[in-house]
Amino acid sequence: MPLKPPLPHHLAEKIANKLNYRHQDSTVIAVVQEATTNQVLMVASMNREAVILTLTTGYAHFWSLSRKKVWMKGETSGNKLRVIDVIVDCDLDALLLRVEPLGPTCHTLKWSCFHNNLDMLLKEFEGKENHTRKIVV
Amino acid sequence: MPLKPPLPHHLAEKIANKLNYRHQDSTVIAVVQEATTNQVLMVASMNREAVILTLTTGYAHFWSLSRKKVWMKGETSGNKLRVIDVIVDCDLDALLLRVEPLGPTCHTLKWSCFHNNLDMLLKEFEGKENHTRKIVV
Repeated sequence: MPLKPPLPHHLAEKIANKLNYRHQDSTVIAVVQEATTNQVLMVASMNREAVILTLTTGYAHFWSLSRKKVWMKGETSGNKLRVIDVIVDCDLDALLLRVEPLGPTCHTLKWSCFHNNLDMLLKEFEGKENHTRKIVV
Repeated sequence: MPLKPPLPHHLAEKIANKLNYRHQDSTVIAVVQEATTNQVLMVASMNREAVILTLTTGYAHFWSLSRKKVWMKGETSGNKLRVIDVIVDCDLDALLLRVEPLGPTCHTLKWSCFHNNLDMLLKEFEGKENHTRKIVV
């Protein structure tokens, strides 16, 4: 049987210890992809604790670069991400989470956080350079 | 006609100015996805210059966090990524590049950089904690 989350804590720790947390705040990059459609839903950061929580609970946890804490995606909205499988990249600093989303991933209630094409970006954010919206977790 | 790369320089600059370069070395995260299959091929960082080069040439350029310079994917191997479309996320700090790869994306000659499942990670890298391989561009 291939290893899939949820995993026992000792295996999750073993896996977490092999990653290269070389990004901001000692994190790896996590790309979230819907398992059934292959749609990319979001990208976020994971520190060692978020990796272990994701692997042991089977629900995606991330490190918030702005709030400097670990959070479970959907802890407020209920729109959790059930992690079906995890694939690690060649240099061990990025994870691909293959998930079943329990609702829309984006705080705008769009299915994916990736929803601005280049035309929309030029029009919708006209004059608003380096604009940032608050993320509802 | 929807805007797709390659774009004229003034539009590429306008788009690049709207992004939130809040990651390490003033970058956004770029997730690369094969347009025909939706397979995720790699993830990397892009500073403003890499965004403009990608949008104006139609080939993926990134910022190397280790070598501290902009590089074109495939500049050595020939395995370039032709960018068909770019989708920007809700908080403007990540791009989804929909590409046609001109060869394998990974330096291991695997099609995708995401190719280690959890079993392989436990076995293949046994004892090699926080191991990093050199990336061939």
